Amino acid sequence: MGDHRNEIIQKLMEVVSDSARVLTKMEDLYSFSFDASFGVYRPDIVCQPMATEEVVDIIKIASKYAVPIVARGRGTSLSGGPLPVKGGIVLDFSLWNTKLEIDPDNLVAVVSPGVITSHINDKAGEFGLMYPPDPSSAHVSTIGGNLAENAGGPRGLKYGVTKDYVLGLEIVTADGKVIRTGGKTVKNVTGYDLTKLIVGSEGTLCVITEATLCLVPKPLATKTAMVLFDEIIDSGRAISKVLSAGILPSKMEIMDQHSIIAVEEYAVLGLPIDVEAILLIELDGHPLAIEEEMSRVADACMAVGARHVQVAQDNEEAERLWQARRLVSPAIVRVKPTKISEDATIPRSEIPAMFQRLKEIREKYNVHLVVFGHAGDGNLHPNIIADQRDVEEMSRVEQAVEEIFEAAVQLGGTLSGEHGIGTMKSPFMEMELGEDGLHLMKMVKEAWDPQNILNPGKIFPEPGQRFELRND
Amino acid sequence: MGDHRNEIIQKLMEVVSDSARVLTKMEDLYSFSFDASFGVYRPDIVCQPMATEEVVDIIKIASKYAVPIVARGRGTSLSGGPLPVKGGIVLDFSLWNTKLEIDPDNLVAVVSPGVITSHINDKAGEFGLMYPPDPSSAHVSTIGGNLAENAGGPRGLKYGVTKDYVLGLEIVTADGKVIRTGGKTVKNVTGYDLTKLIVGSEGTLCVITEATLCLVPKPLATKTAMVLFDEIIDSGRAISKVLSAGILPSKMEIMDQHSIIAVEEYAVLGLPIDVEAILLIELDGHPLAIEEEMSRVADACMAVGARHVQVAQDNEEAERLWQARRLVSPAIVRVKPTKISEDATIPRSEIPAMFQRLKEIREKYNVHLVVFGHAGDGNLHPNIIADQRDVEEMSRVEQAVEEIFEAAVQLGGTLSGEHGIGTMKSPFMEMELGEDGLHLMKMVKEAWDPQNILNPGKIFPEPGQRFELRND
Repeated sequence: MGDHRNEIIQKLMEVVSDSARVLTKMEDLYSFSFDASFGVYRPDIVCQPMATEEVVDIIKIASKYAVPIVARGRGTSLSGGPLPVKGGIVLDFSLWNTKLEIDPDNLVAVVSPGVITSHINDKAGEFGLMYPPDPSSAHVSTIGGNLAENAGGPRGLKYGVTKDYVLGLEIVTADGKVIRTGGKTVKNVTGYDLTKLIVGSEGTLCVITEATLCLVPKPLATKTAMVLFDEIIDSGRAISKVLSAGILPSKMEIMDQHSIIAVEEYAVLGLPIDVEAILLIELDGHPLAIEEEMSRVADACMAVGARHVQVAQDNEEAERLWQARRLVSPAIVRVKPTKISEDATIPRSEIPAMFQRLKEIREKYNVHLVVFGHAGDGNLHPNIIADQRDVEEMSRVEQAVEEIFEAAVQLGGTLSGEHGIGTMKSPFMEMELGEDGLHLMKMVKEAWDPQNILNPGKIFPEPGQRFELRND
Repeated sequence: MGDHRNEIIQKLMEVVSDSARVLTKMEDLYSFSFDASFGVYRPDIVCQPMATEEVVDIIKIASKYAVPIVARGRGTSLSGGPLPVKGGIVLDFSLWNTKLEIDPDNLVAVVSPGVITSHINDKAGEFGLMYPPDPSSAHVSTIGGNLAENAGGPRGLKYGVTKDYVLGLEIVTADGKVIRTGGKTVKNVTGYDLTKLIVGSEGTLCVITEATLCLVPKPLATKTAMVLFDEIIDSGRAISKVLSAGILPSKMEIMDQHSIIAVEEYAVLGLPIDVEAILLIELDGHPLAIEEEMSRVADACMAVGARHVQVAQDNEEAERLWQARRLVSPAIVRVKPTKISEDATIPRSEIPAMFQRLKEIREKYNVHLVVFGHAGDGNLHPNIIADQRDVEEMSRVEQAVEEIFEAAVQLGGTLSGEHGIGTMKSPFMEMELGEDGLHLMKMVKEAWDPQNILNPGKIFPEPGQRFELRND
């Protein structure tokens, strides 16, 4: 924004009710220059709005000077969504956590964008209700970020993702208009579904200032089993077998042998390090139903060659079983400091083929690749562990990640199941969507944001843009 | 299309592989000039494509001559969606029912647009799976029409609507490009969600030539109860009470006293005609769970003042209870020949207020108004019975319907929960969406279909357009 910076700061101070919420010092700006992915990009100014009117006024100023507006929650993005890659004004929504209303009669929550995701589920729980989307970052990420990226999580198999729970939005457009989409009803076919177009659009179409979310009755009970497989291919068969038996688990998580070994080296849980895969299966629902269903799950797994099924007898034992899965991330970063976490997602029948491709990629590029994730819905998390300071290694990692994306698309899957495109994956968009498909999306972007001020540099690849994992 | 008609017919004959699927005779065209709503509009030509390439070639011809293209299934629309209000070419997809593939490992069905909706669920059932959306017309309507209008149905409360089961689409754009959106995975955040933007867009953004649908394991059992209420307001309280007890019924249907009387006069089922409302509640899931849940449902209903709860002891008894609901439509059209079926939807907590407003509207305009529908999700069906030949009566009906729309919007609801906007409700769009909200939708339409050839005259109101119920 160069010459106009002081003028813009002056105007922002006038519209943000507390000038302490307009940050301009270098050390403050630095705090908003990165997220949980790669790259450091300093914004010119950070505003911390706490009201829709403030967002309107800020966007009008940004529009007048044609400077970028980048909305941000708590910066847990794994794809670069909130990075101000073209500078401009970062809208930090983390202070605006003031509204969290539960309307139990309508099974609805109304929230401001800075509310921590897990707080919604906690508050819903007080009314016997549940907010199902459960990204692993739920206890630190904001709902605004979840909406922008359409966050997923382990419960996706049974309950779907963030988008499936958004009934309505209040948004501010690129020219500063306030619009309400959807409402408090599950059924609504009045015109185009702008709500679901906006969720997952990564702040490139508008800025979300409020959301109306759908809740469900909280299941009365849960039940967990850990299943060991000598052959990873049998774990894929077990998933199909369980689902076709009429059982829809709330979670079906997989850990490959590399994950198991990493966890066992990190914290001795007594996991068998000679199995190729572990499935962790959680059922939720009525206690009588899940008791009977779990015995059928166990039978189904044994029938396709599982080595052993351990069903937790109480919640404490279930907690211990889940600990293995929870420790994967901390365990693997002990091996090397840099973790590249992908979320390539494939049709679940292709899980065995994807594991084969990942094995080949691991060997071809000699990278430290571990695989875990939400196997039930085909949303795997291939993670590569590396050391960012090792330029030669990082170049191999970049090639390995590119080949992971290619494998996912070739197997009928998608680049990203739940992390979003951001800056990192935009070079691969055309591979998945084709030129014409990408063009249809771009037409919406250009119609709604003709100046390209809303989170520029995201989703759509720049000419000649290449995939890079760098923090300099 | 005037002068060019013969030229266009000539070209269409060249691209549709069997010229018998290009209809041009007056008597054939007449068959495609109406749907289940109001108005008669003759197309200039009807094509019956049975392959994507045919659709591409037809649209390219339409684009070249700038003539309207109106996709159509089996014409069951209650909102005028498939009416060629500006003439042009009707694409009748009812012959293209050739693809209905179930992929049980991925819980997915892939279908061509002319497949009858209920056939999808039937075929899924062979694999122990279910396709949940169940519009009342499911046994006659096509999936293509359901996708265009985002059809709902009684199961919406627990399972959501058509949109919630669409993973991917093959579409043809206004300039004849074939694009695939989404895929076979539930999780997909690669760019904007064009799939859900297109579902419910009523053929105004593109033409759908294939859909990938999501299936769920088929519930093992169902259980039905009929609950009688002396006061309709207590039925609303019962709905809230059941949901907040952690129970999510698969269906919760309401019939008001006028519906009950009409049914009882039509077929003597022994329904009590002195109650203000009947709730029909269906639970589905594990047999042990729903047995126990149904006793809690009964307790909850009695606790808020139900007169009586009758739980069906077997499937035959359940069938008999459901017969009351099924007979509402045939019963009421015996009173008078013209049925105006609305689907105004409100937050479920506003059901009692909506019933009050409907009562006032019935008296104010002296119309024969009966109310039934999907109470659990607030999707009521106020139906007015009239005689179209009575001009004075129809004018009162028009005013009554306008006031029903106003009441729904004022109570925080929507014009249409599941029938769509079409031609009939477009004059009311701005009332619900505001000028700016409607403009955001229009920008998408204009970007994707700059010539306005795709189903023109739908969703967006014409200048000065008024609400009319006429067939002349």
